[in-house]
Amino acid sequence: MSIKLESHDQIDKFLAEFDVFLFDCDGVLWSGTKLLPKVCETLDMLRTMKKKVIFVTNNSTKSRTTYQKKLSSMGIHAEIDEIFGSAYASAVYIKRVLNFPQDKKVYVIGESGIEEELASEGVQYCGGTDAGERRDMTPEDYDLMRPDPQVGAVLCGLDTHINYLKLSRAFQYLKDPDCLFLMTNVDSTYPTSGSLFPGAGSCSAPLKFATGREGKALGKPNPEMLDAIEAKFKFDKKKAVFIGDRLNTDIQFAHNSGMGGSLMVLTGVSTEAEIKAENAPVVPKYYIDKLGDLCYK
Amino acid sequence: MSIKLESHDQIDKFLAEFDVFLFDCDGVLWSGTKLLPKVCETLDMLRTMKKKVIFVTNNSTKSRTTYQKKLSSMGIHAEIDEIFGSAYASAVYIKRVLNFPQDKKVYVIGESGIEEELASEGVQYCGGTDAGERRDMTPEDYDLMRPDPQVGAVLCGLDTHINYLKLSRAFQYLKDPDCLFLMTNVDSTYPTSGSLFPGAGSCSAPLKFATGREGKALGKPNPEMLDAIEAKFKFDKKKAVFIGDRLNTDIQFAHNSGMGGSLMVLTGVSTEAEIKAENAPVVPKYYIDKLGDLCYK
Repeated sequence: MSIKLESHDQIDKFLAEFDVFLFDCDGVLWSGTKLLPKVCETLDMLRTMKKKVIFVTNNSTKSRTTYQKKLSSMGIHAEIDEIFGSAYASAVYIKRVLNFPQDKKVYVIGESGIEEELASEGVQYCGGTDAGERRDMTPEDYDLMRPDPQVGAVLCGLDTHINYLKLSRAFQYLKDPDCLFLMTNVDSTYPTSGSLFPGAGSCSAPLKFATGREGKALGKPNPEMLDAIEAKFKFDKKKAVFIGDRLNTDIQFAHNSGMGGSLMVLTGVSTEAEIKAENAPVVPKYYIDKLGDLCYK
Repeated sequence: MSIKLESHDQIDKFLAEFDVFLFDCDGVLWSGTKLLPKVCETLDMLRTMKKKVIFVTNNSTKSRTTYQKKLSSMGIHAEIDEIFGSAYASAVYIKRVLNFPQDKKVYVIGESGIEEELASEGVQYCGGTDAGERRDMTPEDYDLMRPDPQVGAVLCGLDTHINYLKLSRAFQYLKDPDCLFLMTNVDSTYPTSGSLFPGAGSCSAPLKFATGREGKALGKPNPEMLDAIEAKFKFDKKKAVFIGDRLNTDIQFAHNSGMGGSLMVLTGVSTEAEIKAENAPVVPKYYIDKLGDLCYK
């Protein structure tokens, strides 16, 4: 059963239990374009307490550099190396784990964040934000759907310019069983502007359905994401807590990857009722109304 | 076990077994823009034998009128009333089965075929081919995602102009559990130009995934499709055979709806190997290399 952190005593014990605080961002630090209350004070408090702070996001539309600017624009200070996004995790995985061949390309469904991180790892790509892909299908497209024979993988993240041409091309590439099917993450929804919109998993859903292939997701709640983070930062994951707003990604991630604990905040997607539901597939170790409540002093 | 029709005797017995011949079109009568061999001769033969011929298609992009033109352009004669498409089936279902309120609208993801059939049944709609929906999201869209309060249902078919704006709007409407979630059909792929492309089911997959709702599909293999056809034509379904090229739609449809038989042709999506696979979820009563082989004389 999940414990709601309400008293100062409970909060103090929670803070003492962990050394590494991994944060989901959307719905935890901010909602839409609005910083949530006392977020900076809470991060300052943790740093003063010598806790390690890591910002983890499934948002694949932004590179780490862009994400640092986003954090900064909110008044949140973060080093590039404290930021771990699903676009970066995907690039690292493709380059270092899969040893993706130098002469092959990744066909991208997604935004510039994925392109920047693939480039940072020296992986060739096509598709993505290419203006030539942002158009209707022509009769010629139906005859030439695999325009680039170098494509050896499809990587799909959130793409707010998704269209039938991109889906068709990705589908044609994926008909070849040797073409890898990767996804930055499979979030069903994407919180922004105080509401929810279709997420990265909704962009890959057509490809899964059309191909019958499952693909491999590299963001939360997939444990590969923590493997990558751990490889970089070296810490005892039992002393790590994941703080997020979604049961099916954040809390599932803490669970799947074997972290010491999880804390769910109620400022995002999942609700207290979902935690208490009899059929809840996973529940957090702790939950709290909002992150800023940790900083009660 | 499926019987392959090869000898003249087998074919004669098959023809004598049924009075009503329901045809899938793509992959059976034609492939891409090419009429398959001896299709017209086979249809003429059946009509001479006083068999009832009905063209059934999950293609939601065309109305019956447009489909009649398509058949005609191929040299295939058909009356409007011999044609049953998933767009028409959906319109009939919405109007006559659901008694959809006069003052409510259907938000359409799909092409003009759906719009024409909804109009033919007097159902109000929005979305669809509206040029105002074929654009990128603007910041304002993120704040106003339910622009039409009259929307009481989302109907999703194949939309080759699918984009994030349409998906987001449909998603916002579907967050209201009172908003109906309907699909013309859930074909995973769409055969055209001698190849396969993502089908109508791939267009609704993001909505299913984002909302967690299953929705209701009205085309093959859903038995509602035959209920509608039967209500119109009045026949004994045990004397009806469905002729198609896909196990998971056509043959499943014959099975789900309790028709007397099914015949699979090998000129489309499914293969002989799939029929013979140990784990085949459904198999046809009969199969044949191509439809024209029925007309051996």
